[in-house]
Amino acid sequence: MPSLLIIAHGSRRAASNDEVRALADAVRAHAGATYDHVETAFLELAEPSIPGGLAALAAKGASEIGAFPCFLAAGTHVAQDIPGAIAEFTAAHPAVAVRPTPHLGAPAGLPAAILGVAA
Amino acid sequence: MPSLLIIAHGSRRAASNDEVRALADAVRAHAGATYDHVETAFLELAEPSIPGGLAALAAKGASEIGAFPCFLAAGTHVAQDIPGAIAEFTAAHPAVAVRPTPHLGAPAGLPAAILGVAA
Repeated sequence: MPSLLIIAHGSRRAASNDEVRALADAVRAHAGATYDHVETAFLELAEPSIPGGLAALAAKGASEIGAFPCFLAAGTHVAQDIPGAIAEFTAAHPAVAVRPTPHLGAPAGLPAAILGVAA
Repeated sequence: MPSLLIIAHGSRRAASNDEVRALADAVRAHAGATYDHVETAFLELAEPSIPGGLAALAAKGASEIGAFPCFLAAGTHVAQDIPGAIAEFTAAHPAVAVRPTPHLGAPAGLPAAILGVAA
């Protein structure tokens, strides 16, 4: 069974990184038998790093990892920085298959959710 | 009727900024009679800026503007930079009421959406 790494930007504010970890907890609770493990990693400013998060999953026995950029739009971080960090890991761990997934983007229902939050 | 400014980070990649504009189009389509205008602004790297986006709405006659941080977690940008940019506008336009809204965060349904995107 694959594992999932939820990749967020990371912040100097601990509360922001905790929001991401809480989101991962919710994803884990919804995942059922889809994933062995669901963990978080951060592009910068927080731990674990992307290579570190991938290595932690590999240490738990994960041999197939979906790498999910939890970003609303595909800027430079999604297009370049995250693939670069994944490549850094895979060069050192060729036996672990890391599958980059599409970024979050704007899922169906997000416009309605925005109107709920902003109202 | 109030207007809504959707505030995103902004990117050097035009496609990323266009994703945000498409999201705003979808919010506008869902907004019905909730808002007079729904526009976008960017914290950095893209136009209009936050003060520029607020001024554009004021030029359309908006006297009450919800300022919505379209960010998944409340890092430094949400906690400090966006309020600072709003304050820059309101100092120059005291007749326009800018109401900061909560940031996007993780709306209900986002964990399920993530599992759909990452699968």
